[in-house]
Amino acid sequence: MKMRLLLTGLALTLGAGTAFAQVKPEILVKQRQAAMTLQGKYLGPMVPMAQGKAPLRADVVAYNASLLDALSRMPWDGFAESTKGVKSNALPAVWNEPAKFKAAQDNFHNAVNALVAASKGGDEAAMKSAIGGVGKACGGCHENFRQKL
Amino acid sequence: MKMRLLLTGLALTLGAGTAFAQVKPEILVKQRQAAMTLQGKYLGPMVPMAQGKAPLRADVVAYNASLLDALSRMPWDGFAESTKGVKSNALPAVWNEPAKFKAAQDNFHNAVNALVAASKGGDEAAMKSAIGGVGKACGGCHENFRQKL
Repeated sequence: MKMRLLLTGLALTLGAGTAFAQVKPEILVKQRQAAMTLQGKYLGPMVPMAQGKAPLRADVVAYNASLLDALSRMPWDGFAESTKGVKSNALPAVWNEPAKFKAAQDNFHNAVNALVAASKGGDEAAMKSAIGGVGKACGGCHENFRQKL
Repeated sequence: MKMRLLLTGLALTLGAGTAFAQVKPEILVKQRQAAMTLQGKYLGPMVPMAQGKAPLRADVVAYNASLLDALSRMPWDGFAESTKGVKSNALPAVWNEPAKFKAAQDNFHNAVNALVAASKGGDEAAMKSAIGGVGKACGGCHENFRQKL
């Protein structure tokens, strides 16, 4: 019974099973921000490794890269038109320049894929460079599509 | 230069490269809550499928299960002792009953693994049952370790 209640609650909260556009805009914003928060969590510890400020740990790079691979798929459907009016740091360019926004997403996916590949290769310089590539892809998108913080 | 600034900012914000315990407790709470939010995002649409209220889409089940696999690894290191004083819905049992909390995490991992396996098998009844199993594992953990909402 508890399981049924939980599942029903989830379905109601998330608008599950209904068309995507019917998920509440505030929920979509919360979900996309959650994905960005976690991208930061798993990119963060690799940054000082890429900068030579911390020892490169190949196991951490491989693990974090695999989670970033999943996370890199998560934010984009949260930028639905229905969320334009919700307070967030997203700039109007997200909706006014969809092709450019999509290109920035693809750029990020590609950088994460390159990091996943490098993390399997065992070459430290390649891993450091690929970590920098992911950071650059984050920054490139924020530059055009996120309000300056 | 911009990339360097972004990376340095990230490293400072997240305490990257320092010992885990030095990441700010508020950040740890935000990150673990983000993981739970996204677990809801990807479990949610499968619930009405399991309940027979929406057609079962095997492609959605397989995709969402693969993302839940990654997400199921993300929250737990965020329940560090340092976060005990941060306002959240976590109950003291998280820290007072660590073995039981770990068992609840493992139970969730196992349920997600079972869903991933079922999503590859093509058997609709098995998928529905495995979706219910994940929901039950969420609820089981919330029952003991999350404040009633």
